[in-house]
Amino acid sequence: MGAAIEQAKKSLLEGGIPIGSALVAQEAGGELKLLAASHNQRIQKNSPILHGETATLEQAGRLKASVYRKSTIYTTLSPCDMCTGTILLYNIPRVVIGENKTFLGGEEYLKSRGVEVVVLDDFECKKLMAQFIQEHPEEWNEDIGEP
Amino acid sequence: MGAAIEQAKKSLLEGGIPIGSALVAQEAGGELKLLAASHNQRIQKNSPILHGETATLEQAGRLKASVYRKSTIYTTLSPCDMCTGTILLYNIPRVVIGENKTFLGGEEYLKSRGVEVVVLDDFECKKLMAQFIQEHPEEWNEDIGEP
Repeated sequence: MGAAIEQAKKSLLEGGIPIGSALVAQEAGGELKLLAASHNQRIQKNSPILHGETATLEQAGRLKASVYRKSTIYTTLSPCDMCTGTILLYNIPRVVIGENKTFLGGEEYLKSRGVEVVVLDDFECKKLMAQFIQEHPEEWNEDIGEP
Repeated sequence: MGAAIEQAKKSLLEGGIPIGSALVAQEAGGELKLLAASHNQRIQKNSPILHGETATLEQAGRLKASVYRKSTIYTTLSPCDMCTGTILLYNIPRVVIGENKTFLGGEEYLKSRGVEVVVLDDFECKKLMAQFIQEHPEEWNEDIGEP
């Protein structure tokens, strides 16, 4: 989660939405390997599809199905419907979420499809979002498809 | 659907997966306006998140929530979990699907969340995919997260 929070802070410094993510694979010997880490890039790249999780998968590039199926995705904020669907498409079996108080995404749907969901309720993740939303409510609403 | 099929053919010519999409908005006067059209770019851009629908939204850029909510997305193939989630995130109320025989995505979930789903069972869309899958089964499986 440290790598994901670092990405969220990086996004904030770039003037973007402070949501970060990291994809971690479990190697054959049981070792953990950071495959990619990135952050929301709506503002930075004028993109409606580069949320933290999708940007991280994009950065990891094309991976074999077997890699996703042994990986964990960390995200500082509860995954929206798009990112929920992306996790399901690639059969990522485990999602670790920084917090879901600011926004509650598709956690129940993920569980219903067999994904393990862990919520940390992290203070730093909440603080980053609270400050951003207070200062930029329009950008935040746009990011979750709200008017 | 013509614009989406044209994009699928363009992708095939580029050596990519022949799935295309188009986003059409209904203007205030009832007129229809093509906002963007694009295609799957897994192979062309080494991307696991640029399916036909997501690439089309990416090309359209940042839009107001009110625009998505009056639009229709056309796709030559039934939307996968990722694209299903993307449609739900942005509250796109209507999806027109070229065919769902090659692959059946999240149509039932879309309907359960109030999205109108129209399936055309188009011969050309099916033919494009059948030919691609016969020649490139590995790329196709990778695109839907299968080993």
